[in-house]
Amino acid sequence: MAASPLTPETRRSLTALAGRCRQELDGSVMPFWLAHSLDRDCGGYFTCLDRAGAVYDERKYMWLQGRETWMFARLHNRWQRRPAYLEAARLGAGFIRRHGRDAAGRVCFSLTRDGRPLHYQRKPYAAVFVMLGLLEYGVAAADATCLAEARELFWRIVRWIADPTLLGQPAPPAGAPPTSALADEMVLMIMAMELLEITDDAAVRQVLEDAIARTRLHRDPDLGVLLETAALDSTDLRSGPDGRLFNPGHSLEVAWVLLHSLRFRPDPGLRAIALEIIRCSLEAGWDAEYGGLLYLRDRDGRPLLQLEHSMKLWWPHVEALYAVVLAAVQTGDPAWLPWLERLVDYTWAHFPDPEAGEWFGYLDRQGRPTHTCKGGNYKGCFHVPRALLMIVQEIEAAGLVPTPTR
Amino acid sequence: MAASPLTPETRRSLTALAGRCRQELDGSVMPFWLAHSLDRDCGGYFTCLDRAGAVYDERKYMWLQGRETWMFARLHNRWQRRPAYLEAARLGAGFIRRHGRDAAGRVCFSLTRDGRPLHYQRKPYAAVFVMLGLLEYGVAAADATCLAEARELFWRIVRWIADPTLLGQPAPPAGAPPTSALADEMVLMIMAMELLEITDDAAVRQVLEDAIARTRLHRDPDLGVLLETAALDSTDLRSGPDGRLFNPGHSLEVAWVLLHSLRFRPDPGLRAIALEIIRCSLEAGWDAEYGGLLYLRDRDGRPLLQLEHSMKLWWPHVEALYAVVLAAVQTGDPAWLPWLERLVDYTWAHFPDPEAGEWFGYLDRQGRPTHTCKGGNYKGCFHVPRALLMIVQEIEAAGLVPTPTR
Repeated sequence: MAASPLTPETRRSLTALAGRCRQELDGSVMPFWLAHSLDRDCGGYFTCLDRAGAVYDERKYMWLQGRETWMFARLHNRWQRRPAYLEAARLGAGFIRRHGRDAAGRVCFSLTRDGRPLHYQRKPYAAVFVMLGLLEYGVAAADATCLAEARELFWRIVRWIADPTLLGQPAPPAGAPPTSALADEMVLMIMAMELLEITDDAAVRQVLEDAIARTRLHRDPDLGVLLETAALDSTDLRSGPDGRLFNPGHSLEVAWVLLHSLRFRPDPGLRAIALEIIRCSLEAGWDAEYGGLLYLRDRDGRPLLQLEHSMKLWWPHVEALYAVVLAAVQTGDPAWLPWLERLVDYTWAHFPDPEAGEWFGYLDRQGRPTHTCKGGNYKGCFHVPRALLMIVQEIEAAGLVPTPTR
Repeated sequence: MAASPLTPETRRSLTALAGRCRQELDGSVMPFWLAHSLDRDCGGYFTCLDRAGAVYDERKYMWLQGRETWMFARLHNRWQRRPAYLEAARLGAGFIRRHGRDAAGRVCFSLTRDGRPLHYQRKPYAAVFVMLGLLEYGVAAADATCLAEARELFWRIVRWIADPTLLGQPAPPAGAPPTSALADEMVLMIMAMELLEITDDAAVRQVLEDAIARTRLHRDPDLGVLLETAALDSTDLRSGPDGRLFNPGHSLEVAWVLLHSLRFRPDPGLRAIALEIIRCSLEAGWDAEYGGLLYLRDRDGRPLLQLEHSMKLWWPHVEALYAVVLAAVQTGDPAWLPWLERLVDYTWAHFPDPEAGEWFGYLDRQGRPTHTCKGGNYKGCFHVPRALLMIVQEIEAAGLVPTPTR
């Protein structure tokens, strides 16, 4: 289905948004990380930065080492070939390659500032972001060894996700239904697509194909959103809180990942489903009382175990914003405009910090900041600049704003 | 130092509080757990109960299986010899003995409803509460095998806490200072005292002695509170967030545990320190803006990694209340009265649920409930009834209210 032409209102809104995002990316967010985050003594990045950028925890959190390496390298590869970006990416890649993997090839969650292991998480995500960082840096530096390391780690992660006992998780109880975690499918799709952008490879395509197929099983038949856990057989998981868990930010992020997958394997049916997931996730995730996207919901309104379920976090909002930009540009449907404006208004009213740079991350349900730090053990140089970059480039590609020579 | 006589105002306040606590314990809290929590089919307890008591997650969380077993047995041993309490305790003890330990003698964090292992936490606390449950049930049922199992588990936990690599934690990096976790010292003191109440034993006394000595190292020299992590050498840990972390509820709970330890080893100096810890923890933990005790604080006001740091939880408030009752009764000092009244007012205004029974557990900083469930994977039948029982019995022992024949 070809896109309808954008309405003048949507064009105006997208054009204004592209300007705001470029301004945030180049004028606030990346300058903050460049100024405060680089550990020139030990390599890698400080990510626990307070409002003004002072380090309050020197530990190296590996999710964020990989993500920041990826971000600097991606900006170098696709935004501005600034030596500062390449050099910053090298700092992360070097730290990862020196300290990132233990003797068994596993990636710890946290290390000391100088790279000694502290905490191992029994999850694949630290390795995922390390893989993505090495891959993007390998492209930026034209470093074939680094690319090969990323590929090797990819296949290792594929095996870990297929059998989490390899990560040290206990075997599921006998008779438990086989399940899929939405985050696992998302990272498999993202890693596979990043590999396919470099080299076509049938085995990698198959990983993408399988992850898409399992992702479709996450769709809630009533709400139309993606739930966090899906049974791979026909078991109804809704008797437990894990099987009822809806994470609006994840559902929206996976929806745009599905839209990206169409570049590698056209699938009009999947396109329609992804657009529906975006619409349904916004409707089911939006807090009608106080605005903003809730962090977690139970699909049946039962109690949630997570203490933070009603908070408003930065990343679901920027993921939602990019998903809606993509939907609006790709369809031309004016129905996306109210969501676009609602998200822009909420996001800009609550998250950016024009005073000290970068964005706040954590608000209570009413929208009051509970934290003023700019980074921690999960928030780093990733969701905000990645979304800003993708939004600007999507709007540029639609011809709504000029693409500057870079 | 002998206690001064209580002022008439303090006597009135304590007498009223004893009445309220007895009413909650016998009329609201225990009826709720007896009505909704017992799993007569598979043994053990449902703890994930919504506001009205409906089960929203059937998993068996082992911290709470041990705690509820302990609570029912304790009520049978020291409150009312009701067959219902003994039978309920037997349900928990039976489940624990059938399913609670794996082949390596470790205790999982969660099991399926019917007792198959799901998640293992690499922490000693599931085992701690299982040990306490088995011990108290062993007393209630005069079951020598059960008591022996509890003793065996105690010594295993002592070894695990001394060397957490036995639990599967990575070895600390070379050169890292040896540290002590406040929660570890607290549970060692509690377990040791419960054992000493049954049989005097020099080795157990030594565990208590050593844990008290390490607990004293947790005292912050400026704030006077107990911090969560202490270096066992002279290392200053305050460059990292773990070394700056103050959990007011923990600090207050450990303070009353220290006061209890005086029953086993009189120590006037420690008594004065424990009273000071209570006063300082209330002052540094109280939210001057919205009332209530904050869940977590950074001793230097730096950012906190935990998303829930500014929430108000039920358990710090009941721990604080018992600590202040103990301080007021033991010292007769009228200075405790304002804190007593402030805590009673905040607690009764926010936590009890006279409509459906039991207490709410989780509020945002402003005091609005974020959850309406009565139990989950950490809140069960423990902190509320334990504190209510201890408060009533302390006030009874002081002769302020009659001790009914039970």
